[in-house]
Amino acid sequence: MNYKRILYVLGTVLALTGVFLLLPLVVGLIYHEYYPTLMLALSAFICIAVGLPLTRLKARSSMFTIKDGYVTVALCWIVMSAAGALPFVFSGEIPNYLDALFEIVSGFTTTGASILTDVETMSHCLLFWRSFSHWIGGMGVLVFILTLLPMADNGSSFSLMQAESPGPVVSKLVPRLRASARSLYGIYFGISVLELILQAIGGMPLFDNLCLTFGSMGTGGFGVLNDSVAGYSPYLQWVIIIFMLLAGTNFGVYFLLLCRQWRAVLRMEEVRWYYAIVAGATLFISLDLLYYGQFHSVREVLFQVASIITTTGYSTTDFALWPSFSKGILMLLMMLGACAGSTGGGMKVSRLVIYLKTGVQELRQLVKPREVRTIRMDGKKLDRAVVRGSLLFLVCYVIIFVISLLIIQLENLDLETSFTAVAATLNNIGPGLSLVGPMANFSIMSPLSKVVLIFDMLAGRLEIFPILVLLAPQTWKK
Amino acid sequence: MNYKRILYVLGTVLALTGVFLLLPLVVGLIYHEYYPTLMLALSAFICIAVGLPLTRLKARSSMFTIKDGYVTVALCWIVMSAAGALPFVFSGEIPNYLDALFEIVSGFTTTGASILTDVETMSHCLLFWRSFSHWIGGMGVLVFILTLLPMADNGSSFSLMQAESPGPVVSKLVPRLRASARSLYGIYFGISVLELILQAIGGMPLFDNLCLTFGSMGTGGFGVLNDSVAGYSPYLQWVIIIFMLLAGTNFGVYFLLLCRQWRAVLRMEEVRWYYAIVAGATLFISLDLLYYGQFHSVREVLFQVASIITTTGYSTTDFALWPSFSKGILMLLMMLGACAGSTGGGMKVSRLVIYLKTGVQELRQLVKPREVRTIRMDGKKLDRAVVRGSLLFLVCYVIIFVISLLIIQLENLDLETSFTAVAATLNNIGPGLSLVGPMANFSIMSPLSKVVLIFDMLAGRLEIFPILVLLAPQTWKK
Repeated sequence: MNYKRILYVLGTVLALTGVFLLLPLVVGLIYHEYYPTLMLALSAFICIAVGLPLTRLKARSSMFTIKDGYVTVALCWIVMSAAGALPFVFSGEIPNYLDALFEIVSGFTTTGASILTDVETMSHCLLFWRSFSHWIGGMGVLVFILTLLPMADNGSSFSLMQAESPGPVVSKLVPRLRASARSLYGIYFGISVLELILQAIGGMPLFDNLCLTFGSMGTGGFGVLNDSVAGYSPYLQWVIIIFMLLAGTNFGVYFLLLCRQWRAVLRMEEVRWYYAIVAGATLFISLDLLYYGQFHSVREVLFQVASIITTTGYSTTDFALWPSFSKGILMLLMMLGACAGSTGGGMKVSRLVIYLKTGVQELRQLVKPREVRTIRMDGKKLDRAVVRGSLLFLVCYVIIFVISLLIIQLENLDLETSFTAVAATLNNIGPGLSLVGPMANFSIMSPLSKVVLIFDMLAGRLEIFPILVLLAPQTWKK
Repeated sequence: MNYKRILYVLGTVLALTGVFLLLPLVVGLIYHEYYPTLMLALSAFICIAVGLPLTRLKARSSMFTIKDGYVTVALCWIVMSAAGALPFVFSGEIPNYLDALFEIVSGFTTTGASILTDVETMSHCLLFWRSFSHWIGGMGVLVFILTLLPMADNGSSFSLMQAESPGPVVSKLVPRLRASARSLYGIYFGISVLELILQAIGGMPLFDNLCLTFGSMGTGGFGVLNDSVAGYSPYLQWVIIIFMLLAGTNFGVYFLLLCRQWRAVLRMEEVRWYYAIVAGATLFISLDLLYYGQFHSVREVLFQVASIITTTGYSTTDFALWPSFSKGILMLLMMLGACAGSTGGGMKVSRLVIYLKTGVQELRQLVKPREVRTIRMDGKKLDRAVVRGSLLFLVCYVIIFVISLLIIQLENLDLETSFTAVAATLNNIGPGLSLVGPMANFSIMSPLSKVVLIFDMLAGRLEIFPILVLLAPQTWKK
């Protein structure tokens, strides 16, 4: 392994985290919150002081394998989280380091699960940092670095991007990777600004506006009020619904729209499936609620559906009280998640499409073994390696889910709580049901469970493989 | 499709069901239960009268494709169940046909889920029929037919056996299929007789003895007492534990033992895993129970573990009251099931082994794409088609599970009930947890849910593909 180059990337990430910390520091100055601001400055200093010297390392070899890519990405996210938790601990607002780590991992991985029982007592600057971490983690910190720094060779950048980007296929928008990463970030920034403007028109205070934009564009879910977003006006709720759905859409769509390739947009099967599932889920849940005489407006139902399928995790109502069928649909949407190439989590809609297509094709093969067929997606032949990768993902996903669930069950909580706690973290959603439902939080969990859930959040955001490669003993053998 | 040959096989199965009905008829005569006996005779007459003429059909072509095999197997099981439910309805002991169908499908598929609230009021002959159906379904009725009837070509027999036998690979013990089927049945019969003798020594009454032998050898789970088998002596419980585990072992082991191929037995990885999992689960559950201060003897814990992993479903204690971790382990064992080539249900231990090995190998491939490795099992190279079939099984299994769960949740029951109801039927176990727990039954379910669970039991027993092929619109296109 190319240790020097790995350390170089780690140093860059750490220094960058320090730079990111300067933004909440400004917020702290504005709100005259001097003690937490000082602690933010201290944390930023530590990050930069440790990170900068590492960026001086010059690797002798430019070799950077796929394995190196996976290991680097996994380590970067761990280092970034370990550093990002510091201001919470230093300021004493989350005195326990494990809790602080849980909170910031939940932020960077855009999960939005919280151990805080009362967010309204937190200082503004730290609330801002919490929400800002969603925005950073949403598009990926390494993808961001790729837009800034020239890497020696295109191959090593690609293995980094491959390991950090969500979905079964990496969307290389244009042949040159750096240009791809830049256009992705440009789109991300542009849509975020649009949301800011629309929410400002709705009269949302600037601080809330920024935090909620970070939360919905990153599909994170941290709010700034205890009642999540139930207190905002219907107009603002509609804006949030739309931007959650946009953030969960494959960003390739926006790129194609910018290039005016309308036909190619319509050919994107994943996006068609995604909006069809949102519409179908909203319809079925509305019918179920009507049947049981629980009145909810379309806005309320659509809000929860959009929030869950994009794995954002905001809520305007306590869906834990909905009938079983509706809760069942929400649980499936939790597992499914948003589109590949979006900021959303979960297994991704494109994987579902691949599973269904593979299933149908293999069933045909079973019956007519001599016929050779290919699976097509978006009008193109689907690479066999992508199918195998997706199936491997399913197997690993199920195994990690099962092991996590067993460990959480050591706490002897009810099945709904343990099951949805794992589902909500592994899919980067935020709230689960029952004791970790939308109106509750994760503070009841034991330290062991918190460690497991932190692992699940990271594994979910990085789509399992980088974390598995990092932990495999074989990786570290000579 | 070769309709004539399919009808010929269906007729044979129907006539055979009539013949099987004569055995409970004898029981009815012994117990002087004249009315239900008369109804058994009527049912047997109908089966034979409809079935025999069909066996006169001569197919013009001897073509019998794999598709024909799947369709035939699925139809056979449906016809057999439809006929087997008749005596319950005629006798008025289960007046509702859907309930009777649920009960007999549960019998043939060796599930053991019951809609009866009080089995002790049933007549002996019908209780016997219920338990006998486990024994028939355990090894497979078509495999039984293959031992009796000469089929025109070996190929068509093989596609039938392939469609009915459990597990990812069909165990062709000897090159000639009929001899394979015969030796399997010989072993099955032999072990059953051994259980009968050991239970007789323990002083079990003959009627209970026969029914429990059918139930444990077929890994079914229907009992003859309301408290399942909790009332029997420790000795008898140990005997039942041992024979449940034996019935869940790959029958290839017994064949190899008979041939004195000791080394080959030790090389069977699936069987090693199976017993290791039983031991591990018993240990972990015992520790968990000790920690929560619930005292249970090793016998009690091992009994529930063996009953669940072999998908039998007998119980000596209400494990719904156990702590969450223990219940979690039991739920995993429910999904996992017993060995391939046994009478047990579930996904099968060999599939788990295949998933794990494929996962590890594909992860290595991910990191080192140029290295070519093969997956080995039992010392032999694992066929790529078997791996693909197993992955297809996982995808179909998850999809059927999810859709069934959603439909059951329309009833607005708690998650534990709906989830374990589907798990218990799709894996052919019997009892679930909560409202369908070991001390409860399925009578609370709505007709729609019962239809879904009947489908799940058949899909589980036939390992999904035959039922899917039967239902695929493509199968019926010209």
